[in-house]
Amino acid sequence: MSNIPFVFWLVPIASICALGMAWYFFKQMMREEEGTPRMCEIAEYVRKGAMAYLKQQYRVVIYVFIALAAIFAFMAYVLHVQNPWVPFAFLTGGFFSGLAGFFGMKTATYASARTANAARKSLDGGLRVAFRSGSVMGLTVVGLGLLDIAIWFLVLNLFYQGDKLALVTITTTMLTFGMGASTQALFARVGGGIYTKAADVGADIVGKVEADIPEDDPRNPATIADNVGDNVGDVAGMGADLYESYCGSILSTAALGATAFATSQIEGMQLKAVIAPMLIAAVGVFLSIFGIYLVRTKEGATMKNLLHSLSLGTNVSALLIAIATFPILYLLGMDNWLGLSFSVITGLAAGVIIGQATEYYTSHSYKPTQKISEAGLTGSATVIIKGIGTGMISTCIPVVTIGVAILLSYLCANGFKMEMTAANLSFGLYGIGIAAVGMLSTLGITLATDAYGPIADNAGGNAEMSELGEEVRHRTDALDALGNTTAATGKGFAIGSAALTALALLASYIEEVKIAMHRAGETVVNLGGEAIDAMNASIPDFMNFFQVNLMNPKVLVGAFIGGMAAFLFCGLTMEAVGRAAQKMVEEVRRQFREIKGILEGKATPDYGSCVEISTRAAQHEMIFPSLLAIAIPIVVGMVLGVAGVLGLLVGGLSCGFTLAVFMANAGGAWDNAKKNVEEGHFGGKGSFAHKATIVGDTVGDPFKDTSGPSLNILIKLMSMVSIVMAGLTIAMG
Amino acid sequence: MSNIPFVFWLVPIASICALGMAWYFFKQMMREEEGTPRMCEIAEYVRKGAMAYLKQQYRVVIYVFIALAAIFAFMAYVLHVQNPWVPFAFLTGGFFSGLAGFFGMKTATYASARTANAARKSLDGGLRVAFRSGSVMGLTVVGLGLLDIAIWFLVLNLFYQGDKLALVTITTTMLTFGMGASTQALFARVGGGIYTKAADVGADIVGKVEADIPEDDPRNPATIADNVGDNVGDVAGMGADLYESYCGSILSTAALGATAFATSQIEGMQLKAVIAPMLIAAVGVFLSIFGIYLVRTKEGATMKNLLHSLSLGTNVSALLIAIATFPILYLLGMDNWLGLSFSVITGLAAGVIIGQATEYYTSHSYKPTQKISEAGLTGSATVIIKGIGTGMISTCIPVVTIGVAILLSYLCANGFKMEMTAANLSFGLYGIGIAAVGMLSTLGITLATDAYGPIADNAGGNAEMSELGEEVRHRTDALDALGNTTAATGKGFAIGSAALTALALLASYIEEVKIAMHRAGETVVNLGGEAIDAMNASIPDFMNFFQVNLMNPKVLVGAFIGGMAAFLFCGLTMEAVGRAAQKMVEEVRRQFREIKGILEGKATPDYGSCVEISTRAAQHEMIFPSLLAIAIPIVVGMVLGVAGVLGLLVGGLSCGFTLAVFMANAGGAWDNAKKNVEEGHFGGKGSFAHKATIVGDTVGDPFKDTSGPSLNILIKLMSMVSIVMAGLTIAMG
Repeated sequence: MSNIPFVFWLVPIASICALGMAWYFFKQMMREEEGTPRMCEIAEYVRKGAMAYLKQQYRVVIYVFIALAAIFAFMAYVLHVQNPWVPFAFLTGGFFSGLAGFFGMKTATYASARTANAARKSLDGGLRVAFRSGSVMGLTVVGLGLLDIAIWFLVLNLFYQGDKLALVTITTTMLTFGMGASTQALFARVGGGIYTKAADVGADIVGKVEADIPEDDPRNPATIADNVGDNVGDVAGMGADLYESYCGSILSTAALGATAFATSQIEGMQLKAVIAPMLIAAVGVFLSIFGIYLVRTKEGATMKNLLHSLSLGTNVSALLIAIATFPILYLLGMDNWLGLSFSVITGLAAGVIIGQATEYYTSHSYKPTQKISEAGLTGSATVIIKGIGTGMISTCIPVVTIGVAILLSYLCANGFKMEMTAANLSFGLYGIGIAAVGMLSTLGITLATDAYGPIADNAGGNAEMSELGEEVRHRTDALDALGNTTAATGKGFAIGSAALTALALLASYIEEVKIAMHRAGETVVNLGGEAIDAMNASIPDFMNFFQVNLMNPKVLVGAFIGGMAAFLFCGLTMEAVGRAAQKMVEEVRRQFREIKGILEGKATPDYGSCVEISTRAAQHEMIFPSLLAIAIPIVVGMVLGVAGVLGLLVGGLSCGFTLAVFMANAGGAWDNAKKNVEEGHFGGKGSFAHKATIVGDTVGDPFKDTSGPSLNILIKLMSMVSIVMAGLTIAMG
Repeated sequence: MSNIPFVFWLVPIASICALGMAWYFFKQMMREEEGTPRMCEIAEYVRKGAMAYLKQQYRVVIYVFIALAAIFAFMAYVLHVQNPWVPFAFLTGGFFSGLAGFFGMKTATYASARTANAARKSLDGGLRVAFRSGSVMGLTVVGLGLLDIAIWFLVLNLFYQGDKLALVTITTTMLTFGMGASTQALFARVGGGIYTKAADVGADIVGKVEADIPEDDPRNPATIADNVGDNVGDVAGMGADLYESYCGSILSTAALGATAFATSQIEGMQLKAVIAPMLIAAVGVFLSIFGIYLVRTKEGATMKNLLHSLSLGTNVSALLIAIATFPILYLLGMDNWLGLSFSVITGLAAGVIIGQATEYYTSHSYKPTQKISEAGLTGSATVIIKGIGTGMISTCIPVVTIGVAILLSYLCANGFKMEMTAANLSFGLYGIGIAAVGMLSTLGITLATDAYGPIADNAGGNAEMSELGEEVRHRTDALDALGNTTAATGKGFAIGSAALTALALLASYIEEVKIAMHRAGETVVNLGGEAIDAMNASIPDFMNFFQVNLMNPKVLVGAFIGGMAAFLFCGLTMEAVGRAAQKMVEEVRRQFREIKGILEGKATPDYGSCVEISTRAAQHEMIFPSLLAIAIPIVVGMVLGVAGVLGLLVGGLSCGFTLAVFMANAGGAWDNAKKNVEEGHFGGKGSFAHKATIVGDTVGDPFKDTSGPSLNILIKLMSMVSIVMAGLTIAMG
């Protein structure tokens, strides 16, 4: 371990700092008062429901993990087509990802009543509690991520050492813990997404449209399930999701660094390239904590002050990391530190642009969403047509931005050389990876601004159900709206980094194929009559060897299947939400019909039965789409080989990314089109246009909170599975 | 011209036979009585409206054609980066495609009243008139297609002769008339699609949902516009579309044949390979005519008899062409006639499977659509969620089928060799192309069964407006429903052949790049230090030279943009329909409000103003998306070069194909889910579920009739533009 440079220790230190600060913020939040007995009671309901669900979910997921780990163990110890560390790395990745979701949700369920209570006194009090609680989630995710990375890096360094191959083996092995994290994240997003949207859609249809009672009204039997859903979907699901994104970007870049600099003549350059992304992330943690402390408000702050304060925190952190990258890479002694720093800036800029575009297309301060509200005047059908149109058009800016970012970060890193030699390509890909790391480096604070949204939302629910009065509800609504605005930027970073990371993973796949061939004893690659040692063959060599070009029918068929996989996956999750929501509607109607006095507020609805419907649906419906995401790359690998897998991944990435942006933005725009009407436009609350936009909002729910966000994970999970299964693909070939 | 084998003359003969039969059926139809004065009057309204619109559309399109032809002329005669025949070929392709739509529509507008009149007497009388009129369209399309192909082939043969290169030049030049056809088809589909759906959506929202009057009721001011729309969108648009598909598949296969057999040792094999797809198409024409004559019914036939009779015609034609392929290719003396024949059968089988899958997912005889109806019980939001879910899931079977068909037709044609040598690849690609030709060879009859649907639909409109009574309307509804069932199969062939043709066009693009390089004086290709004569370089050589592999960032960025282009295009057309439909709704509401007595049937609505709204909207809104489809490949070519263009085409193809299936099937399923409720399920007409499913049907209208079908053309047009602009791409590189 002597070869590890001193500066590496910043990584575990940053991790411990992040976890320590998370603990401190958690304790701080717990010291706040929870409010009236009614508020405590509601919070207890939601907390218990959420925890019960999470336990149920983990119970199902654990079987999947045991089964997959057993398969990996069989492949590693019996078939010898797999690295022996994989089963363990896979399990820890899944465990830590789940833990991140669990801690985040625990905090959120304790924070909601406390936020509502603080909001009884002042707006800025509410913000402080909610945002600090969100920070617990943000810091837990980055802290656990870096901890897992640091520990595995140190452990594997004990076993593999010395030659240039060692670092390649270490980093590609570590990628498999990314697969564990992705698998956990997919289950969390899909399960949580189905849970929350079944409840939300069901509650809205009967409550808002049919019975004409407000959101979160305690008379609605589905309201507790809806609030539980916000926690299990938007908090626990998002935590697991971003844990996966964060680790995935760091690990894939480290793996690319190990390959790109494997033949570097400069002593230690390879190791530095592996550590660089971890260091940027570590420094990002400190800057995030700094940014969190910048978010302070004075007593009696206005909405504008609050927004300014939140933006200040995230923007300063992002700016500082952009500046800090230069000295980090320079002091580390990276060869091309200047170019790489510009790659990082490209990534950050792309994230900001995508965030701005998201805001433009989904906020009702702008025309596209206002036009959707206007379409409400002619009924729900035109709202839906308009929303789908807007969502589809909104894919243009993000895709073009990512395209430019790919080219720029690639060219910055390799000194603006377009010719695809082995070196240019490796350095360029490393640049793409490090751009993704840059984008996510301030996750500690951006996730805090994301996670505080559902906390504010739940605080609003608590306020409504505890009947705290108009003013408190207004304050929590304002906090929620604030969260929506900052969340747009967060989404830009999440989706942009997913695309870049997935690209980096393509290269890691080739690397894993190389190792698998070595393991299978295929040491020579034949290229145009020339025999090259497989371990020395470059990525372009492998492209030629496996004929991964666009006229190879295997590649083309793979691309078709990849595009279809994204649609199929979305279709399955949409249907799942639809089915569960129908059951929810029937149950709520039944209660309204059979339990006398609910609507007059004289009888208590049976909240438990609605919680039960959401739980069962989520449990049952999450399994098939998730397993499909794992099965497709395995089957394609066995039938179509390496060329087919790469086609699959590229088809899935290009189609899935666009589909994800479409679904997220259409959903967001419908949501805000409804809010726009509720603010008094086109007839206001209760008008014809309002009913029409509620239909849009309801359709948008699974778009933006179930299918859309799951696609990010799907894209990366398919890559991860391909990487882990490369041994099998080669053995079958 | 002496080198042209005698058997080639079958192609012009088939063309003339087709056109002659079309003329004969047209005359036969015109001899039928048009019915009561009221019927004649309504038919006259619709005919005039449709013709007026078509003239308007052609007036706009002609400017686009002149501009594009001028650009091509400049490229050819001034810059010398373009074949000198291109401007002319482009113009004739556009002209013939427009002509096919025009003739089809003329026939349809004369046939609708006559069909209604025949249906007054009997169901089978109605079928006979409608189907024979549909046959006019089918035979006109294939007749004009083969005529254009035959003439150009003969003309170009006069100018280029002798060496192996001549046929490559001839066939790639002919492809550019495909671009003219695609451009015309896109305008026709988009313009017609916007026209018809603006009217349809507007008429449905106010008429069916708000005023509770039946479809095609003369009190609805938008009803004439709706009926005109069926003609300009479903008939003229479809005619231009399928003309493009038909010619595109034959021309791209001929071009592949010229390349694949360019180095064949056997005398004349290259020419035979060029002629083979034309011959299969020619024989298909005769078999289609035979099939059309099989569609006969006895007096007093039941629905089941009619369906059987229609299926008999199409199935026998398909079966006969499958059998006939063997002797055609054997007698022609094709080297690998047996394998190629199996490629054709693979294509035919894929078309049938996709058709069956389409029927399963969109017919209310099956569960998926029934479930959408059931979702109507919980409101329109769940209908939309369910429909989108079903549509997305329905992409699975078609994509997998096309994947298998690609691999099988490729392998059958090259003797089951997977290794990607130059020869294996060329023969394999030729196999993919000829599978598409096989699929479309019986277009004469399949298009007849497609085109007769809108005729029956319009006949129903005429019957309703002329107040012919329940029974006649029932008969025309039955004919319409029958058309929906057979159209599912037709759709399978259209969409499947589009995917296969687009693949074949990829190879043609490489060929055009080769010619462009030759023209630009770049005669040597450097490959790993070795210099190869560009004209002798194979497709795999070009893949290496331009580095068209999946790790090239240009390819990846191209793929992203391709996927996005499909979404953007759909979004723009959806928005266009939404905007126009809103205007239509407002106009209809205005008339109901301001013109007293409309709803009581005492005053005549102002049909003209609604026709005007649709016309203006279509004119105005079709331009931007269509020009975008032309601009994107040009810009990508200039910025990202050959590798980027191929990435774009593959990304657009994989994503666009899946998106097209999703949109078509979701739309179809919503339509039939509504019909299912109207047949008495889940509450029947006028129930809560009925209103909910009408919303689904309305949303589905632009899905299935505007955006979805336009995507087929978009995919091919982007390829065609790339091919025609290859000279510019190379000159810029």
